[in-house]
Amino acid sequence: MRIDRTALADLARGAAFLGSGGGGDPYYGLLLAEAALERTGGFDLISPSDLADDALVAPCGWIGAPTVSVEKLPNGGETVAGLRRLEQIMGRRIDAVLPVEIGGGNGLAPFIAAAELGVPVVDCDGMGRAFPESQMVIFNVRGVSACPSVLTAACGSLAVIETDNNLTHERIARGLSVALGGIAHMVEYPLTGTQAKHQSIPGSVSAAIAIGAAIRTARTERRDPFEALATALRATGLYPHCLTLFDGKITDLERETRGGFSIGKVVIDGFGGDGQMEVLFQNENLVARLNSEVRAMVPDLITIMDRETADTITTERLKYGQRVKVIAASAPSMLREPAALALMGPGAFGFDPAFTPIETLNNIEGA
Amino acid sequence: MRIDRTALADLARGAAFLGSGGGGDPYYGLLLAEAALERTGGFDLISPSDLADDALVAPCGWIGAPTVSVEKLPNGGETVAGLRRLEQIMGRRIDAVLPVEIGGGNGLAPFIAAAELGVPVVDCDGMGRAFPESQMVIFNVRGVSACPSVLTAACGSLAVIETDNNLTHERIARGLSVALGGIAHMVEYPLTGTQAKHQSIPGSVSAAIAIGAAIRTARTERRDPFEALATALRATGLYPHCLTLFDGKITDLERETRGGFSIGKVVIDGFGGDGQMEVLFQNENLVARLNSEVRAMVPDLITIMDRETADTITTERLKYGQRVKVIAASAPSMLREPAALALMGPGAFGFDPAFTPIETLNNIEGA
Repeated sequence: MRIDRTALADLARGAAFLGSGGGGDPYYGLLLAEAALERTGGFDLISPSDLADDALVAPCGWIGAPTVSVEKLPNGGETVAGLRRLEQIMGRRIDAVLPVEIGGGNGLAPFIAAAELGVPVVDCDGMGRAFPESQMVIFNVRGVSACPSVLTAACGSLAVIETDNNLTHERIARGLSVALGGIAHMVEYPLTGTQAKHQSIPGSVSAAIAIGAAIRTARTERRDPFEALATALRATGLYPHCLTLFDGKITDLERETRGGFSIGKVVIDGFGGDGQMEVLFQNENLVARLNSEVRAMVPDLITIMDRETADTITTERLKYGQRVKVIAASAPSMLREPAALALMGPGAFGFDPAFTPIETLNNIEGA
Repeated sequence: MRIDRTALADLARGAAFLGSGGGGDPYYGLLLAEAALERTGGFDLISPSDLADDALVAPCGWIGAPTVSVEKLPNGGETVAGLRRLEQIMGRRIDAVLPVEIGGGNGLAPFIAAAELGVPVVDCDGMGRAFPESQMVIFNVRGVSACPSVLTAACGSLAVIETDNNLTHERIARGLSVALGGIAHMVEYPLTGTQAKHQSIPGSVSAAIAIGAAIRTARTERRDPFEALATALRATGLYPHCLTLFDGKITDLERETRGGFSIGKVVIDGFGGDGQMEVLFQNENLVARLNSEVRAMVPDLITIMDRETADTITTERLKYGQRVKVIAASAPSMLREPAALALMGPGAFGFDPAFTPIETLNNIEGA
């Protein structure tokens, strides 16, 4: 599949939704990817099955607090510096790149890489959404090592990490991202072609493009973008259930940048006096409670969107007074397996209740 | 010069004094170096002038809060892992090692490296004492790059840093040391033989040995160890002035581990009711005030010692009730040059008054 300017904008829109509030606002990533597209004429999106088994595939993205990314822009050279260093360490060329996480700005990160290296992007990712910590990735669930990984920052600094523990790797990389100014580009979990085929969330890049296209088309044709979104999500096969959890106005917001994360809580009051929704986040939205009752929990997707335009509002862009809808979608089935839930479920974030799917929490028919 | 078991113990004693309260307690470093000596039979200490101009010389030591090093012991493999990686990056063997700082446990660090690699230790260092931050080193004053540097930790993790700014390097390395558990081994500022000859503090390792030997001999011969220390310091040529600033009991201590440092203040009450001395520290003792009047300031050396045994008490070992003498010594002249003072003088630690030598502050005769 050839990615043109329209597909790129659709991807940004769809990835913003799949980010569940995190992964960073895709705006800057889209500008950088559009500039790369101008230079190169377009990008190739290939299926994992197109990869040679022994290919070297590099997942890439940004690590840090999205709040920082609003003010501290990339210099544009971080991506290629990190990838070239990985090539040097591995003693061979990178054959393809992919997003560590399809969610938010990170869904666009590999397109800049692809343009620089002249390689295709693979239609898969490691999360099927965005997660705040780097070990919360299907590659880790399936036993792939994060290392060697390479962090690069706008100041021109570079760091290589090697450790055999993926949680230790997250701690080191997080500490580095703080020391490097709060945000850094990271190439991690280098994969073989075989690993990319069998140990990733397949089709998530094209799913993001389809979701973004559905919202765009609905707007043009003056149809309800939220209905279009739900239909598109179901059609991907990856996100079978979707519902609007709440409709209201943001009346309270707590948000701080701590330990390399944006952490906080947003409170939304319903328009018809029909109660209050509270969404807790750590970069990504983690738990949504309606009148203190849990209605959605990680790894299911929780995204706050402008109630008129269906534009996603990432956690660093939340503001008092915004009129929003809270949308939930079921996570890809790979993320609901016990081994994945142990790393990415509510317990991994310190929440007590065990994971319950949105279908059960909201009595969705046919679930 | 061949380093035997006695010289090693003397070095530990002398390095503890030169650490100005920092560089970590040499006890664990001494145990590791003694074990290495058992295996290898001894170490060679060579003069910088013995180095080939194009030799690869690796300064090494530990970065982190000394308070952490009391409880978190090295696994013994950090040093060789970091040095071997530097060799891999540089594409050649390391010819010799030296201490980044002669002060405290870091004065012993290169001996473990020397044993592992089968190379000599060079009789020089980068500080002539210990300083809390890695850019506070004569190599930096003289324009040498800290990178590539390699950090290794007890958990087996390794990180390589590359940046062209030595202050940025310190920030990254400090962040890494925190992420790696509070302390890490670091190989940094790789030098050529020519650089080691002309851009280091020469003779500081043998000076530490001579200082330690003087204290040991005085104890054996029941002479005053403080007098022996002062005589030995003057004889080195590096530390021409020395005096006892205060004699008393520790009556207050504030100490916290913050940002990868041990930071605090110790208050000492005089025995004869002759006032109070306050010593401020950030890993190392920075400023000593007698009844609020400055009597010594960084980069001059300020060391707190047991008033009976002349054992150095590093900042992480200070305790309420200890009976101590506060000793000051003039810093090596290279550290008092304007370019060095800008990086290691009182202003670099946020103190207002410009550097004044202890000779002037204490009206030492002949100064």
